[in-house]
Amino acid sequence: MAFGWIDEQAELRHRAGLVRTLRPRPADSPLLDLASNDYLGLARHPEVVEGAARAARTWGGGATGSRLVTGTTELHTELERELADFCGFEAALVFSSGYAANLAAVTALAPHGSLIVSDAGNHASLIDGCRLARGTTQVVAHAEPDAVRKALRTHDGPAVVVSDTVFSVDGDAAPLAGLAAACRDRGAGLVVDDAHGLGVLGDGGRGAPHAAGLAGADDLVVTVTLSKSLGSQGGAVLGPARVIDHLVNAARTFIFDTGLAPAAAGAALAALRLLRREPERAARARAVAGELHTRLTAAGLEAVRPDAAVVSVRAPSPEGAVRWAAECRAAGLAVGCFRPPSVPDGISRLRLTARADLSQGQIEGAVRVIGETRP
Amino acid sequence: MAFGWIDEQAELRHRAGLVRTLRPRPADSPLLDLASNDYLGLARHPEVVEGAARAARTWGGGATGSRLVTGTTELHTELERELADFCGFEAALVFSSGYAANLAAVTALAPHGSLIVSDAGNHASLIDGCRLARGTTQVVAHAEPDAVRKALRTHDGPAVVVSDTVFSVDGDAAPLAGLAAACRDRGAGLVVDDAHGLGVLGDGGRGAPHAAGLAGADDLVVTVTLSKSLGSQGGAVLGPARVIDHLVNAARTFIFDTGLAPAAAGAALAALRLLRREPERAARARAVAGELHTRLTAAGLEAVRPDAAVVSVRAPSPEGAVRWAAECRAAGLAVGCFRPPSVPDGISRLRLTARADLSQGQIEGAVRVIGETRP
Ligand SMILES: Cc1ncc(COP(=O)(O)O)c(C=O)c1O
Ligand SMILES: Cc1ncc(COP(=O)(O)O)c(C=O)c1O
Repeated sequence: MAFGWIDEQAELRHRAGLVRTLRPRPADSPLLDLASNDYLGLARHPEVVEGAARAARTWGGGATGSRLVTGTTELHTELERELADFCGFEAALVFSSGYAANLAAVTALAPHGSLIVSDAGNHASLIDGCRLARGTTQVVAHAEPDAVRKALRTHDGPAVVVSDTVFSVDGDAAPLAGLAAACRDRGAGLVVDDAHGLGVLGDGGRGAPHAAGLAGADDLVVTVTLSKSLGSQGGAVLGPARVIDHLVNAARTFIFDTGLAPAAAGAALAALRLLRREPERAARARAVAGELHTRLTAAGLEAVRPDAAVVSVRAPSPEGAVRWAAECRAAGLAVGCFRPPSVPDGISRLRLTARADLSQGQIEGAVRVIGETRP
Repeated sequence: MAFGWIDEQAELRHRAGLVRTLRPRPADSPLLDLASNDYLGLARHPEVVEGAARAARTWGGGATGSRLVTGTTELHTELERELADFCGFEAALVFSSGYAANLAAVTALAPHGSLIVSDAGNHASLIDGCRLARGTTQVVAHAEPDAVRKALRTHDGPAVVVSDTVFSVDGDAAPLAGLAAACRDRGAGLVVDDAHGLGVLGDGGRGAPHAAGLAGADDLVVTVTLSKSLGSQGGAVLGPARVIDHLVNAARTFIFDTGLAPAAAGAALAALRLLRREPERAARARAVAGELHTRLTAAGLEAVRPDAAVVSVRAPSPEGAVRWAAECRAAGLAVGCFRPPSVPDGISRLRLTARADLSQGQIEGAVRVIGETRP
């Protein structure tokens, strides 16, 4: 029978305790949210919501076509200009998701005959970009510029180094300065995914590349998502205008995908303007993360020191992690639960996000619940 | 210099007359739109726009996380239920784009050791799905069930046949009954992309699989987009519940992507309900396509007989197509212009979409302009 093998896999997953099921949430969930990526607490901000509603009214429910046909509105261009300007880059290109932006950046910048050097901890979308690209991929040890140097030395011709700026599972930061230096020594390009850096790191949330003094460099391309700090949906690639022009002409997930919905562009633009006006939101997210880490560690839990707004707590096993998250939920706290195959190293963890709008009481309450429910 | 090769490619593109540039459109374009994929004219329908605005107000600007963490709202589940029910399938799963839905369906249903038989005219997103999948791909001649049969005979073990239902460039339909029979004979699965069929083909727009009497078959998986007939953004996979459960557990573009923005889900749901109430929109889109084709042919133009709502007109050359489209535009008519590398066969064409809400006068005016500006 067609798809018969699916049932065998389902049975294996079931026996391993690794079945995933969707849990639809209501609009007015009573849970305290430490699971989403809404780092700045902007997804439900009235200005962001009105940005979405206004854009839908002005431009319609969808972009109606691919970006090169009818799918580029003046709203898309405005968002691209303001994003590039905010993060300190010459140009930007908006996609329907951060996933699509990553596929585009990696595939379009790693042609046949080129080398891609990819960090072992990279996000699935960067990995899929490497798999789709015509170049050859070398995976290198996590966050080690020396490993990158060594890999680059094995190749003549075009090369790109690809890395998350903040790794989504443990929330640790990439050694951007070291990566940039390794790239420059070999004339290689650097492509970094700032999905978890934008809005959190750098001056007023301008992102990890800005914080590292690399924004606007002519050998750097940055991808971002509009779906985390900016509380919307979509992604973007930032870089030199010539690279962006190249993507317009060569990136398949740009050319063959419908443009981002106007409501999503409008929401992201409103969030970006809010962040400009209230730059302290970025620092607050970092401070909340630091405090969560300090308190969790003081409670005897094994938490990774956060470089941005993700705080990762080790769990003893996949089942232990699932039970722990379920008990948190029963106590009114939503936390992320990462386990195989969604973690590169096989280690299960709770994943907490430090929203800028958490109160002192909420932080303390969350740490109490996590401590009391530990397996 | 990093990315130096980009300038050489840009120079080549320039010399070949194949440079693409974005043309942002204003909210109140004076052009008559025969270029978008807004087949039913719903993208700016007040109910669709209000569906988007209301969803943003109720649920926020973004889904805030991946579908398995915080990104599944009750709105997503409602949309999935109604989509599955409308198209006649057991279950549905919504993605951030049709592109992501295609990547998910192909990669998750073609494991290591399996065979993928892929039509030579398939959309880029299906092709990328084949490239990403662990299975081995055989590309077969366009729309030929016998070629599919032959390819399936070369392989034992799991196999899937992958095809658009309506090919996006020429608007011709796949031989679904023949493909389904070929699959059944070999116990292979059939994965079809109904991006251009949903809302246009089948009873009240239920899509090409429904029209072919295949809806709900246990060896059939259908992908759709919410960005064309439904006037929004997003995609979905429809099929047996066991296949959808498998995607939840295995599809990377589902697991590692932020959930579809509530506004896009709300707009698509409103469009779906409208279509249920006004099923004549689907037949009207087909009738407009037929009339466009008849009149273009009568005017001596080489147009492909449309099987859905896409009408393709041959152009003599890439430059000829670009000039032709520009002259249409100057005369107040927006048409699509497809040329290498966006066409599988290297033939450039104008691409017209037959919107259900075009008036008789608009149809006649459009044909007049296209005839008068022909190269
Ligand atoms: C590091 C990283 N990159 C890219 C993405 C994909 O972005 P999006 O959800 O906007 O597709 C995510 C998560 O969703 C992520 O964590
Ligand atoms: C046949 C086909 N499949 C899939 C897609 C991708 O859908 P989406 O634009 O929603 O990503 C498109 C066009 O955009 C298409 O024409």
